[in-house]
Amino acid sequence: MLINDTIVALSTPAGVGAIALVRLSGSRAIEIVDSVFYKSSGKKLTDVASHTAHFGVIKDGDEVIDEVVVTVYRSPRSFTGEDTVEVSCHGSTYIQNALIQLFIRQGARMASAGEFTRRAFVSGRMDLSQAEAVADLIESESAASHATAIYQMRGGYSEVIASLREKLVDFASLLELELDFSDEDVEFADRERLRTLLEDIRITIEDLTDSYAMGNVIKNGVPVAIVGAPNVGKSTLLNALLGEERAIVSHVAGTTRDTIEDEITIKGIRFRFIDTAGLRDTDDEIERIGIDRAYKKIEEAMIILYLTDTTCIDDMWWKEIERLKECYPSKHIIPVANKIDIGSQTHLPNGTIHISAKQRVGLDVLREELLRVSGTNDLTSRMIVTNARHYDALLRAAVAVDRVVASMQVDLSADLLAVDVREAISCLSEITGDISSDDILGAIFSRFCIGK
Amino acid sequence: MLINDTIVALSTPAGVGAIALVRLSGSRAIEIVDSVFYKSSGKKLTDVASHTAHFGVIKDGDEVIDEVVVTVYRSPRSFTGEDTVEVSCHGSTYIQNALIQLFIRQGARMASAGEFTRRAFVSGRMDLSQAEAVADLIESESAASHATAIYQMRGGYSEVIASLREKLVDFASLLELELDFSDEDVEFADRERLRTLLEDIRITIEDLTDSYAMGNVIKNGVPVAIVGAPNVGKSTLLNALLGEERAIVSHVAGTTRDTIEDEITIKGIRFRFIDTAGLRDTDDEIERIGIDRAYKKIEEAMIILYLTDTTCIDDMWWKEIERLKECYPSKHIIPVANKIDIGSQTHLPNGTIHISAKQRVGLDVLREELLRVSGTNDLTSRMIVTNARHYDALLRAAVAVDRVVASMQVDLSADLLAVDVREAISCLSEITGDISSDDILGAIFSRFCIGK
Repeated sequence: MLINDTIVALSTPAGVGAIALVRLSGSRAIEIVDSVFYKSSGKKLTDVASHTAHFGVIKDGDEVIDEVVVTVYRSPRSFTGEDTVEVSCHGSTYIQNALIQLFIRQGARMASAGEFTRRAFVSGRMDLSQAEAVADLIESESAASHATAIYQMRGGYSEVIASLREKLVDFASLLELELDFSDEDVEFADRERLRTLLEDIRITIEDLTDSYAMGNVIKNGVPVAIVGAPNVGKSTLLNALLGEERAIVSHVAGTTRDTIEDEITIKGIRFRFIDTAGLRDTDDEIERIGIDRAYKKIEEAMIILYLTDTTCIDDMWWKEIERLKECYPSKHIIPVANKIDIGSQTHLPNGTIHISAKQRVGLDVLREELLRVSGTNDLTSRMIVTNARHYDALLRAAVAVDRVVASMQVDLSADLLAVDVREAISCLSEITGDISSDDILGAIFSRFCIGK
Repeated sequence: MLINDTIVALSTPAGVGAIALVRLSGSRAIEIVDSVFYKSSGKKLTDVASHTAHFGVIKDGDEVIDEVVVTVYRSPRSFTGEDTVEVSCHGSTYIQNALIQLFIRQGARMASAGEFTRRAFVSGRMDLSQAEAVADLIESESAASHATAIYQMRGGYSEVIASLREKLVDFASLLELELDFSDEDVEFADRERLRTLLEDIRITIEDLTDSYAMGNVIKNGVPVAIVGAPNVGKSTLLNALLGEERAIVSHVAGTTRDTIEDEITIKGIRFRFIDTAGLRDTDDEIERIGIDRAYKKIEEAMIILYLTDTTCIDDMWWKEIERLKECYPSKHIIPVANKIDIGSQTHLPNGTIHISAKQRVGLDVLREELLRVSGTNDLTSRMIVTNARHYDALLRAAVAVDRVVASMQVDLSADLLAVDVREAISCLSEITGDISSDDILGAIFSRFCIGK
């Protein structure tokens, strides 16, 4: 799989566009493109400097496939670390196909998903967690998910993990030394210093695992349920929020329309809205089922917007809010009073947000409140774990470290300590890729798109 | 509109991919990117050589938008002829948006459709017919449409048109000279030489206009109707043809699936299949309507595949073929006998193709026959007009030239000849863009995608 052959793929999105990029990487990349590229100046690609662009035509025999610009990146100054050539062509599907087929006939192989990034990892251009951040970056749709992905791609907590790992390795080597001299009952590793070190490690791991809840919110959005009796204006509110947002974000036509659907982004944080049926007390059996279903959906939410109509407010609303608070103590419930343009506003619970969805009044206050209760308005610390694989490895590392601490408290021997220390090292190594099986790498890179 | 301000657009297809390209063109392109680009080496983009690629980060204030590769093309050595910068970034929609918005804040303007190519035309990098071929090239889906587009983009018949125009201009100037000396009744323009020249021009224009039928077929595909009684295997045949074709062309997954639908490409020529209801003689009024509709659809076809089932062949089929030949004398009718794996093959009309759609027998022969009757199997002459605007201008030029010839035959005076000669020149100038109004340019470039 990872032999140094030359791979080729379309690196720009599939479909028709002004320009498409076909990328090759591997020891024969430059030679393969050179064999079919005719540069106006006549100079050969094998002779040109790295990081230079060259206009010319690509020919299959006598047939001109396209006028292209070819950019050459010489090893190790490329994304993959290998010789890399990018062919910028006219973006017709016919040309894209024709070029890829031509390069394959000249000796390249179709790249598998994520293979360019995998090669960047294998050649040491980035560690595994950085490589994974590349995929997150490409998928990022909001400012916050983009910020955490780019932070991680540019190093992020890799350095922190590497330093933790290094300390544990030092620790382990001292323990091993004790093992070698176990007959003599010496302690090369100062137990007090070790205890402090383990505590440091434990705190850092905890910071990282604690950040995962936030990381998950950043990556997947904050789930919000808008609930309330029928006709209080749930859809009007959602449309008002969506409508304003769409107008703000849609600078490049058609790029995101499909995906935002029922999502809005407030200061870079995505909020995903969950549709629910109108809630009210009822004796109707069928309606009750629908309302039960709505309560089930509320389970998925992190925030509940509980909406009412100020023109026909009654005690039911207050009771329902109390009931929701009892049922879902861990969820944030925001009471929202709608239609303030036509209704009265007396006797509302503390913390109620007053809005008119129709007149678009009070939406700013509501947005601020959504940000505040989501806890995402303070992203000063950027060291946030968004990757489930990393989270899992960190949790296992924490367990192993805890076991070392516990063993030390009962003065267990060095060889028993060493087992758990090695386990903790192994968990951290999984994150950076210092230890990784082909299976794990395969699973990680298969979620990439072809061409990256 | 065409002031020399700096434009920016996403040049790769919209959507998520490994890499996206954001392109800027105009006098401030390099300066605008430089203001937000931080190159590892610290060198400024304003100082780098043309055709060089530079790795670094783009920052919006303190926030890193992405790690990018920036390629600089200095005027006039670029597609537009202006200073051009291409920013190759990770292909997330968030990053694409963020970069474009950042460049706009720095002073660029969102490009309109086709504006990069329009600038290439305005700066004299290509004539109008070449610019139009760029759009055809991007849309090309078959080898033949690709070949005619790239031939035209690289010069094509532009030179022929330019040479015709030049000859007519010489002719016109001689006529004008006669006008200046009209009192003296001289003939500077040798009438015999003029007549030969006009004949040459007329023949060339005719060659070009004659090629348009072929050009249309190449660009839009050959319409083929598969007709026949119910259950003779029309769908099986179509699926067999499509299935084999799909397996051959689909090297890049998902790129063409949406568009090929009921099309197959044989040796680079597209054939578009038209669905029809099963045909048979009937007294049923309702069924008759459906069959009438099928006949209407046959009108759109250039080729009719008339299919029968060899296991239950009867006289009806022969009669129907005769009837079709009478109704549509200008269409090519190919009799096809299906199910030869289980049926007899006696007494079939000459020229019948024997196939088994199910067993995929005889499909090669059928494909060859489709190519042969479409007349597209001989594309030795590549000078083919595919553009309706050019066809229209050529037809009008031909009419004007014919009028000049007719006027000369009755010895009309130079001033009357000159009017028609000028009209012919004007028609040819429309094709190359030597004369063009803003309205015409607007209409032409608006069919481009944004970013080209």
